[in-house]
Amino acid sequence: MLNEKNVQLGKVRSSIRELFEYGKKRKAEIGEDNVFDFSIGNPSVPAPEKVKDALIEILNTYDPVLLHGYTSAQGDYSVRKTLADYINSRFGTGLNADCLYLTCGAAASLTIVLNAILNEGDEIITPAPFFPEYRVFTQNAGGKFISVKCKEQSFALDFNAIESAITPHTKGVIINSPNNPSGVVYSENDIKTLAALLEKYSLKYGNPIYLIADEPYRELVYDKDTKVPFAMNYYPRSIVCYSYSKSLSLPGERIGYIAVNNQISEFSDLYAGICGAGRALGFVCAPNLFQQLIKKVYSVTSDISVYKRNRDRLYGALIDYGFSVIKPDGAFYMFVKSPEPDAKAFCERAKKHELLIVAGDDFGCEGYARMSYCVAPEMIERALPALKKLAESYNLG
Amino acid sequence: MLNEKNVQLGKVRSSIRELFEYGKKRKAEIGEDNVFDFSIGNPSVPAPEKVKDALIEILNTYDPVLLHGYTSAQGDYSVRKTLADYINSRFGTGLNADCLYLTCGAAASLTIVLNAILNEGDEIITPAPFFPEYRVFTQNAGGKFISVKCKEQSFALDFNAIESAITPHTKGVIINSPNNPSGVVYSENDIKTLAALLEKYSLKYGNPIYLIADEPYRELVYDKDTKVPFAMNYYPRSIVCYSYSKSLSLPGERIGYIAVNNQISEFSDLYAGICGAGRALGFVCAPNLFQQLIKKVYSVTSDISVYKRNRDRLYGALIDYGFSVIKPDGAFYMFVKSPEPDAKAFCERAKKHELLIVAGDDFGCEGYARMSYCVAPEMIERALPALKKLAESYNLG
Repeated sequence: MLNEKNVQLGKVRSSIRELFEYGKKRKAEIGEDNVFDFSIGNPSVPAPEKVKDALIEILNTYDPVLLHGYTSAQGDYSVRKTLADYINSRFGTGLNADCLYLTCGAAASLTIVLNAILNEGDEIITPAPFFPEYRVFTQNAGGKFISVKCKEQSFALDFNAIESAITPHTKGVIINSPNNPSGVVYSENDIKTLAALLEKYSLKYGNPIYLIADEPYRELVYDKDTKVPFAMNYYPRSIVCYSYSKSLSLPGERIGYIAVNNQISEFSDLYAGICGAGRALGFVCAPNLFQQLIKKVYSVTSDISVYKRNRDRLYGALIDYGFSVIKPDGAFYMFVKSPEPDAKAFCERAKKHELLIVAGDDFGCEGYARMSYCVAPEMIERALPALKKLAESYNLG
Repeated sequence: MLNEKNVQLGKVRSSIRELFEYGKKRKAEIGEDNVFDFSIGNPSVPAPEKVKDALIEILNTYDPVLLHGYTSAQGDYSVRKTLADYINSRFGTGLNADCLYLTCGAAASLTIVLNAILNEGDEIITPAPFFPEYRVFTQNAGGKFISVKCKEQSFALDFNAIESAITPHTKGVIINSPNNPSGVVYSENDIKTLAALLEKYSLKYGNPIYLIADEPYRELVYDKDTKVPFAMNYYPRSIVCYSYSKSLSLPGERIGYIAVNNQISEFSDLYAGICGAGRALGFVCAPNLFQQLIKKVYSVTSDISVYKRNRDRLYGALIDYGFSVIKPDGAFYMFVKSPEPDAKAFCERAKKHELLIVAGDDFGCEGYARMSYCVAPEMIERALPALKKLAESYNLG
């Protein structure tokens, strides 16, 4: 007689969490150094020293009544103004403070946006592989979750697949670039093609389709020539969901924003819908201390060189051992092709070598497994012999 | 084609916010000191010095990767354990860490609980006057919001009214004691009577009715003999929604908890439902820095002596001028009887005297108006002549 959907959701741990908890138990049994935990996307690099310094300065100098008081539901005006100016200077957009809505992180950004745009039965399309919670968030907002495959091997967008999934009920497409779990950054050309497709069908069905760009990994790209296109520059009906969880290594503090384009005709209704959804879901405002922090460190990023080194080392070894995997452009995940059709069986075999990796099934992509490389470089070194043995057990290489 | 319900919710500011924004404008016109703003419930007393000291100590000594990292969705185990022990020592309960679920404040606690227990069409009863967002939160969770009047003058619970509102679809009753906006604390006797009533109808209809105790004002009581009964001690199916917003003057930081009783048969499903609802709404975890803070300052309260002095001064003056108002036991609101039937007209007339007070209509109680006395004592002194003139304009006194 409780809400059965939420009871079930609370009982079933995600496969990532499940494996992470197993890892904790296993480490207690055989020692921390003997388990190679690639299960979870928790930044391993500390927040920049500037974060600590700024927080302490704020605590020492701001009036505590204002500092810890309510901000407006959208967030402190001066913080939003600073962020709008910064986005404009980076991407040549013309946003103002009232295009921004500060949130308790990317998950909050997504649930608020989905509750703002969806009516019962509306559809959200997501290219697979995708972050598994997209399904939960969409369904909770009354939407129908439709996943379409990316291209085999490259994990680039498959426009035939996307086009054939679009219906008169399509309300949005969620993209996540750099992608969790593939690490792929969608190219400028692909974003242009996607924009044209969404434009065409918005017109055809007389029903605007939003492009929801989930961007927690925007700053985590490792090569100079990798550019992450800013969706709004290609498609006006883009809604950007940003988070500082990964870029500043603050995942537990819950701070991010939604950016909406004021150049679209329904802007004021869309922004009102976001305010209304935030209110109805109980968010009140984003944590004020972290709002003030962001105003000071908006252009700072954690030292991501460790992730780059981890990527190169792990990728090189996997290829060397005979695994099939594409080199990630960004984020801190690698999506390895399972040497046997059933990725769950592959992950179970990996477990016997104390390697904790997550089957791709929950990411909408069977036959692959995700390795998170936001880990200590030493763990990767210790893990390599086990990875080699795992490859040998499949006669790879 | 957006979600019209949320668009409307975002467009219509609450009457409290509306008046607060008017006040800001008016202060700019005629000077800060000439507007008497009793509109909003933002703590005027700063967070205790211990809060700042603890935050800085935590920032200086904790490993930043752990400090700012994800906690489990329920909150850090050691924080939950500390709070469970503290609750047990205060109220003689037998809670453990897994009875607690840390949240982004009381609003989040409420939306999570309502989404955990409600199915479409289930009913939530609330005695009026009530915090207006209860209606928004209940309806967003698919519930039907039923308000019943409290007793005239005393604003004590009216059990006849509550009993006649109970149906086979009743899923919960929200109480808020000390009450916003009346300041009333429901007596132990009243909680016992309410418990018996809910027990009776849970059995009669074979459908457990939850008592949801919204407790942001628990620590804000001003007289030694005022005791706030702990609902769980009288009714096992109580769910406590607590927040540190008012007790520690941290409303902008969003930290609180839900406490559930493990002595009820469906405990594990109810707790799972809470975990599931938190996940589906996008909360991920409560801000970690503030989780760690609470572990250190759980027994500290802001200096509420200012609120007590404000209460006594304002109450005395209102009575003196001929207004009808009951003396609040707690919280920082006074609910004044409007001298004319239409409280909105009364508030408009008050505005002419630069007095900003909120009509009771949105609190489910016509004919009354709320004054928030979480303000500088000097403002009350400056406001008294205007209050006197307002009374005289009605020939009171």
